[in-house]
Amino acid sequence: MSVRIVMVETTHPGNIGATARVMANMGLTQLCLVSPRSFPDPAATARAAGADHILEQARVFDSLEAAVSDCGCVIGATARRRSLAWPLLDAEQAAARLVSEQQSIDCALVFGPEACGLSNAHLDLCHAHLRIDVNEAFPSLNVATAVAVMAYEFRKQSDLAASESAVQSTEEVAPMTMGEFDQLMSHMERVLSNTAFLSGPKTKLLRKIRRLLLQGVKSTQEVNILRGVLTSLEYALGISQKQPQKRAQNNSNTPT
Amino acid sequence: MSVRIVMVETTHPGNIGATARVMANMGLTQLCLVSPRSFPDPAATARAAGADHILEQARVFDSLEAAVSDCGCVIGATARRRSLAWPLLDAEQAAARLVSEQQSIDCALVFGPEACGLSNAHLDLCHAHLRIDVNEAFPSLNVATAVAVMAYEFRKQSDLAASESAVQSTEEVAPMTMGEFDQLMSHMERVLSNTAFLSGPKTKLLRKIRRLLLQGVKSTQEVNILRGVLTSLEYALGISQKQPQKRAQNNSNTPT
Repeated sequence: MSVRIVMVETTHPGNIGATARVMANMGLTQLCLVSPRSFPDPAATARAAGADHILEQARVFDSLEAAVSDCGCVIGATARRRSLAWPLLDAEQAAARLVSEQQSIDCALVFGPEACGLSNAHLDLCHAHLRIDVNEAFPSLNVATAVAVMAYEFRKQSDLAASESAVQSTEEVAPMTMGEFDQLMSHMERVLSNTAFLSGPKTKLLRKIRRLLLQGVKSTQEVNILRGVLTSLEYALGISQKQPQKRAQNNSNTPT
Repeated sequence: MSVRIVMVETTHPGNIGATARVMANMGLTQLCLVSPRSFPDPAATARAAGADHILEQARVFDSLEAAVSDCGCVIGATARRRSLAWPLLDAEQAAARLVSEQQSIDCALVFGPEACGLSNAHLDLCHAHLRIDVNEAFPSLNVATAVAVMAYEFRKQSDLAASESAVQSTEEVAPMTMGEFDQLMSHMERVLSNTAFLSGPKTKLLRKIRRLLLQGVKSTQEVNILRGVLTSLEYALGISQKQPQKRAQNNSNTPT
C-alpha cells in the first residue's frame, strides 16, 4: 500500500512544484491535488527541479472526499490546537502512524490552502490531525515546508520500522476505506434526519458521531454491520421506500 | 549560546527568504550569509513572509572562516558520502550534537550554494559533516528545504533535551573557537612549510592534520599548548625572525 500527499486548494503553483521535489527527495511518489488554482503550471515545473514524474502522475480531484475515498487512514495538517477531541499528532507520531497503517491500507496526508489551512469540514474527514510543533510567535509554515518536514519524518520512521525486525501482521480483516465510511455516514444521516435526533443543531451532532465512528470503526465488516443496523432502522421507520434507487446502490455492500 | 544558520554563496535570494521563514517557524534567529549573490532582495523579503526580523539582523561575510570564527562547533551539510574519515552525521545526530554543544559555545550549521553544495575547502572548516538521508534516485535537496529539515529536527531535539532533566555541565575549560583553530593551523602551516614535511603534496597532508586536530583539540588551553610547541619549533628552526610582526600578533594568546 502507499501514502499519498493531498494538497487542497493550493493557491501558488510554485508550492506544488516544491512539494513534488521534496516528495521525490524523500521517496514519496503519489501527489493528489484538490481544486488547485493553476495546474499544470510553469512555476510548478520550475520549482520541481526535475521531479517531473511526480507532477505528471499527479491526480486532480474536485473534492477531498474523492481524493481519499479509497484510503483507510487520513491525517490532516492543522495549525490549530484541537477544537473537539480529535486525536492530535505531532510530526513524528503522524509519520509513525502512516508507516504502520500503510502496511495494510492506502493512507493520505492532507495539507490545506496557503492562506487558511484545512477547514473544519476538511478536518472532519480525517482520522487524526497533525500539528507540526512551531514557534508560537511565528507559526505560519509554508505548505511545501510542512510537506518537507513530514516527508522527512516519514522516511525516517520508515527506516526505523524497517530496521526493526518486520513483524508480520496477523490481522485478517479488510480495513475500512474512507469511501465505505462516507457511505455509512450518508446512510446514517439519511436515517437520522427522519428522527427527532437531528431536529436540533444538526452539524455539531453529526460531527461528533463522525469523530466517534472514525476512531472506532476499523474494518469493512464493521461498516457492513452498522449499515445493516441502519437498513433495518429504515424499514422500521417506514422510510425505506423513499429513495429506492439510492438505497439499492448503497446497500450493495451490506450483508443481505 | 546559540546556533546560527550559515548560507554560503546562495544564488537565489528566494531561498534566503524561505530559510528566514522556516528559521522563524522553528525558533532560530541568527542567519549569516557568505557572499550571497543578491542581498537584501525583494524576492528574499517576499518568501520570508513576515520573518523580516531574521533578514534585517542577518550578517553578511566575505568568507566562511569569518562567519564561523567565534564558533566552537561547525557542521557543514553535504550530499556526498565521506571522502576522508570526517564524522558524518544524519539529521538527528547533527541536531542532537548542536543541542549539546550550544550549551557551552556558539555553533554553526552551514549550507552551500544551490548548484554544487559546499566545496571541500568549506567542508574542511567543519568539525563534522551532515548528510540528510534522501532517495538516491533524486537526491538534490533545495537548500531552504534542507534548512527546514534541520531547523525542525533541531527544535525537536531541543525539546527532547529540555524534557529530560537538565544535566549540569561540570567542564570548566574554555572551549576552542574556530578563530583560535584557524590561527593554530596558520601557525602550523607556517612552521611546516619550513620543513621537508610539506615538500610533498601539501594540501592533502594539511587537510588530514586539520581533520585530526579538529576532532581532537577541544579547548583554548589545548590550542595554546600547541601554539607554544609551534613557537618553540620556530625558534629551534631559526625562522622566528622571518615574520616578526605576524608572530607577535599570533603569539599574543600563547602561554609565555
